[in-house]
Amino acid sequence: MTFSANATIDLRSDTVTLPDDRMRAAMAAAEVGDNVLDADPTVRALEERAAELLSAPAALWVPTGTMANLVALTVHLRRGDRFLATEGAHVLANELGSAAWLAGGMPHALPHDAGPGRPTPGTLAAAIGARGAAYYQLHTTLLCLENTHNAAGGAVTPPHEHARLVATAREAGLKVHLDGARLWNAAVALDLPPGALTVGADTVSACLSKGLGAPAGSVVAGTAEFVEEGRRVRQMLGGGMRQAGVLAAAGLAGLDRIDELDTDHVNARRLADGLAELGWTVVPPQTNIVLAEVADMELTLARLRTLGVLAGPMGGRVRFVTHRDTTTADIDETLLRISDN
Amino acid sequence: MTFSANATIDLRSDTVTLPDDRMRAAMAAAEVGDNVLDADPTVRALEERAAELLSAPAALWVPTGTMANLVALTVHLRRGDRFLATEGAHVLANELGSAAWLAGGMPHALPHDAGPGRPTPGTLAAAIGARGAAYYQLHTTLLCLENTHNAAGGAVTPPHEHARLVATAREAGLKVHLDGARLWNAAVALDLPPGALTVGADTVSACLSKGLGAPAGSVVAGTAEFVEEGRRVRQMLGGGMRQAGVLAAAGLAGLDRIDELDTDHVNARRLADGLAELGWTVVPPQTNIVLAEVADMELTLARLRTLGVLAGPMGGRVRFVTHRDTTTADIDETLLRISDN
Amino acid sequence: MTFSANATIDLRSDTVTLPDDRMRAAMAAAEVGDNVLDADPTVRALEERAAELLSAPAALWVPTGTMANLVALTVHLRRGDRFLATEGAHVLANELGSAAWLAGGMPHALPHDAGPGRPTPGTLAAAIGARGAAYYQLHTTLLCLENTHNAAGGAVTPPHEHARLVATAREAGLKVHLDGARLWNAAVALDLPPGALTVGADTVSACLSKGLGAPAGSVVAGTAEFVEEGRRVRQMLGGGMRQAGVLAAAGLAGLDRIDELDTDHVNARRLADGLAELGWTVVPPQTNIVLAEVADMELTLARLRTLGVLAGPMGGRVRFVTHRDTTTADIDETLLRISDN
Amino acid sequence: MTFSANATIDLRSDTVTLPDDRMRAAMAAAEVGDNVLDADPTVRALEERAAELLSAPAALWVPTGTMANLVALTVHLRRGDRFLATEGAHVLANELGSAAWLAGGMPHALPHDAGPGRPTPGTLAAAIGARGAAYYQLHTTLLCLENTHNAAGGAVTPPHEHARLVATAREAGLKVHLDGARLWNAAVALDLPPGALTVGADTVSACLSKGLGAPAGSVVAGTAEFVEEGRRVRQMLGGGMRQAGVLAAAGLAGLDRIDELDTDHVNARRLADGLAELGWTVVPPQTNIVLAEVADMELTLARLRTLGVLAGPMGGRVRFVTHRDTTTADIDETLLRISDN
Repeated sequence: MTFSANATIDLRSDTVTLPDDRMRAAMAAAEVGDNVLDADPTVRALEERAAELLSAPAALWVPTGTMANLVALTVHLRRGDRFLATEGAHVLANELGSAAWLAGGMPHALPHDAGPGRPTPGTLAAAIGARGAAYYQLHTTLLCLENTHNAAGGAVTPPHEHARLVATAREAGLKVHLDGARLWNAAVALDLPPGALTVGADTVSACLSKGLGAPAGSVVAGTAEFVEEGRRVRQMLGGGMRQAGVLAAAGLAGLDRIDELDTDHVNARRLADGLAELGWTVVPPQTNIVLAEVADMELTLARLRTLGVLAGPMGGRVRFVTHRDTTTADIDETLLRISDN
Repeated sequence: MTFSANATIDLRSDTVTLPDDRMRAAMAAAEVGDNVLDADPTVRALEERAAELLSAPAALWVPTGTMANLVALTVHLRRGDRFLATEGAHVLANELGSAAWLAGGMPHALPHDAGPGRPTPGTLAAAIGARGAAYYQLHTTLLCLENTHNAAGGAVTPPHEHARLVATAREAGLKVHLDGARLWNAAVALDLPPGALTVGADTVSACLSKGLGAPAGSVVAGTAEFVEEGRRVRQMLGGGMRQAGVLAAAGLAGLDRIDELDTDHVNARRLADGLAELGWTVVPPQTNIVLAEVADMELTLARLRTLGVLAGPMGGRVRFVTHRDTTTADIDETLLRISDN
Repeated sequence: MTFSANATIDLRSDTVTLPDDRMRAAMAAAEVGDNVLDADPTVRALEERAAELLSAPAALWVPTGTMANLVALTVHLRRGDRFLATEGAHVLANELGSAAWLAGGMPHALPHDAGPGRPTPGTLAAAIGARGAAYYQLHTTLLCLENTHNAAGGAVTPPHEHARLVATAREAGLKVHLDGARLWNAAVALDLPPGALTVGADTVSACLSKGLGAPAGSVVAGTAEFVEEGRRVRQMLGGGMRQAGVLAAAGLAGLDRIDELDTDHVNARRLADGLAELGWTVVPPQTNIVLAEVADMELTLARLRTLGVLAGPMGGRVRFVTHRDTTTADIDETLLRISDN
Repeated sequence: MTFSANATIDLRSDTVTLPDDRMRAAMAAAEVGDNVLDADPTVRALEERAAELLSAPAALWVPTGTMANLVALTVHLRRGDRFLATEGAHVLANELGSAAWLAGGMPHALPHDAGPGRPTPGTLAAAIGARGAAYYQLHTTLLCLENTHNAAGGAVTPPHEHARLVATAREAGLKVHLDGARLWNAAVALDLPPGALTVGADTVSACLSKGLGAPAGSVVAGTAEFVEEGRRVRQMLGGGMRQAGVLAAAGLAGLDRIDELDTDHVNARRLADGLAELGWTVVPPQTNIVLAEVADMELTLARLRTLGVLAGPMGGRVRFVTHRDTTTADIDETLLRISDN
């Protein structure tokens, strides 16, 4: 692709990725059926493939990552249960409170004191509190992890830290849900199979849109019983789409290209290095997200917009996300436009 | 299409329709964008087209008909409000209680005493009850109509009856939501534009799947303010799909062929007449649904299945639904298989 | 008590009963403790006595009858479960939709086709529907009975009919909740112990206010496990009152005088007979509620008010309720005032 | 009262206070009516008196402090709104998640960086975030303050800090709810009228049980419109008690003795000083709560129990609460028992 000097470079999110021709062809050719009646062969194939990749017994396709998390939380939480999640987690900050009003859970935010995106086991244990609480006290029943962690700048939780957090939670009788919207990125960054990052989790969600480029769709994986109840919840939420195989076909195409996420990571580092050279204060990216500290976030975003560079806000910082539709030339052009101004 | 003697004839629902080649091509070619950011041109085009067809100021694309109704009810209902719907209505019987637990409304079922699918204005007025109820009494704030009415066998509510029900409701201060999942069928049966059947309703939902053949997707239409708040609710429910334009393209293709629903109606009458000749007790179909009274519903469904004919249950009766993928030859073959047994 | 010609006679409801001196003395002398910590001896005594009377393993004191039903429904219902109740039942019509938005249940109303206040077992079985419903269909999991039935004019369901309904429900795997707000009236009318009317129910609520005259308070009885979970729900709803023993003492005093409800029944019949003699169309009362058919309910209530007689509306009819604070002289004076006008 | 050497000294909470003879007499003599029909003169008198004391236009009696907060949050919050409260606040930690599953709000905890029990205005402003958030982002619409702050050891927020927090919140378009369960203690500690501490709050709850000694009951105050809608919510939650005047009479008696809370504060300081002399690490009490840092909270509580001293847990620390039924002799005996062991 030759680069047009005037074209807008969209680094707001990897959700803006467009399906490419191969993906569109797969969608056009997909064999489909009525998925509410569990008769869509492409959805079934995707669910089996995703379950395998995530090392889970079964998986359920859902229209969005928000619904994936919502299905998991609704199945896990009893009305009034307390659940733990890391500060800035998607289930806390980006799902319009559905964890509270739909799933009925009382959230409690954990600090990132073990590193970006995760608490220490000690902090987790303290937050869980004493066992055998009285009936009039909140019962903590669920831990939500997020890997990579969006608000922490696409930070990766390494497997041994994940394992210790899961062990701490399970020992205290908690269930564990892993929001793996960008789990594929973590796996690529660590050069591990995705299933190596889900060990001990009761459920894990993962996105087929974002970096993998499908137009829409996520999976949420767990036991067969979980998937059975999750299917009921999906239907209640209005997620029971009929010939969903057209989207599942895109998802399957996306799963074929997990390795290509490495390009996004390389581009993110190139962008971060370039910005640092230009004097910006940048969090070194672990995957495809670059967070920059700026004096005035709103002002910076506006200035970038006038340069034809779209970025987004992330808790007072500026977030750049590299993705399938970002080329190395885009990165260089971005840096050029910034340096010229 | 030549008919294979062994092929299963699927008359369970018009939800089983498969996208045809033209529709698949439209999906493959769709210009798309991130629809959560309201930047998907095909979704926008569909929403504008649907709003126009439904004579509403604005419309919102949602993944399913259940979510379309759920968005409308959630926006309209205050926690604990009472709403009225006809016996067997989709919002009462087919949405897993989401009208209750998500939208927070207390339903009250109205009898079909004006004809299949609708109450008389007098019955409606009596159910609404006295105005100025005390704070400790249920306040009735919403009327849900359904046209065509699924449980009533695809029955059409004619415009003058619709108008009188809407007038009765509005006079008492109620809002009106019209579940028009199969409104297109009603319009075709009456040879009227769909907008002629939405007069006075605050919101109307309509399905792009079912008879129109899109793989998934519905719209819910109303004022611009309704759509704005509905978009928030859609996001909370996990219905905020990114490049939804691939499905909206299928929906647009579907809206081009509303007139073709007439074929389904002709086939339904052909089936009903044939069954009647074979001695079945059949409700004369007004659109694409044929209800048959049988001695033992479960047994009849099982017997049909052994004949390679799939039908479904509908409140103790057997429901046959004709649709895009049903040919006249299918109808004749269905009758032949039944008559031979 | 000598009757004052000008005094208002309040027959709106037995909820207006005032605690008498004996009850006030019991409250003033009650030994109390912190009932959230389960340390109020008077509440404990009441709960044990109520459980015994209702033939249940355990009981829980709650501030109101609405909360009693709400606790039961919240414990029994999974989000989106369908429950059955008789038309006009308190849980449908008089609790501001809390069965829907708080307990999360989708209600379905049963007709009173076996007699006032109860359906036939056949009607119940048909409403429950087929077992083994698909995941996308509503599951019916609870039957709510009401004895006596308020909207049916204080109608009594006899034990053999109760038993057949319970058997039908349990055979289909449903739980049974009995709203026994006025179960004491049914027991007195039938000259049976209250426990004879709760056979087979999983839970039963009963009111200590209304006819028994306590200022407030109800019990909800069931297994020990139910009470344990119910206590948690009571706390969540804000029903965890501290020294509730002052009200439980009133409740205990009320339970001592169940037999005195017979006076209310005699007075109700006296009122009904008198009204009939004056040409009114009256449903013959079985307990303490008299329903009168009138041409214009609002007008009749207003006219009665000018005569110093307070009655209430009940689905288009006028409802008179006799209670502890209603004397025979009140009834005669009521009839006199009506006959003079 | 002479002190019995063997008697248990209950310092778990001021919720254990028992009504005294004067209060019991007031209850026994209370003029009452049906408060659901808004016809209980004693409840009305209490509501007027409380509104006046809290400098609010109107007030509503509710059975518990949990329901008071729940009514306020349910009225203020739209499903999915985000609300802010201080870490350890009662609405976050002690109400079984009802703020989430019933009121539908997504909580966010604020640190106590301005002093125990309150954030700085800057922290608050940062947590509120930018205005004009997109529809798919959480909207923060409510700030909950707590004065005195239970988890912070009965800490008082002084009026000028309260005012600055309220101003920051209102400037950003938030509503403000003040959980004043122990607002009376704050007023006494500051020697100010309670109304001086509610300035700018939209709603304020205050407890009649706890230090004031009523068996149960709280008020929630705000505009007349708030109270009207709050009454509906109270009814939905099952808080519509009939002759609630018996409890309101106790509440009125409690309001007569606000000044007596000073004794509890003196006793708390006496206890804290004594414990410090014995080598304990104690947070200097501002009102009636003493928090002690201990090596092993569970062990310390158990050891105290064997000494006949009941205390409670508070986030890893030991909490002692002085109250109406705590005498100076109790304090001295407590210290004696501890020093002897």
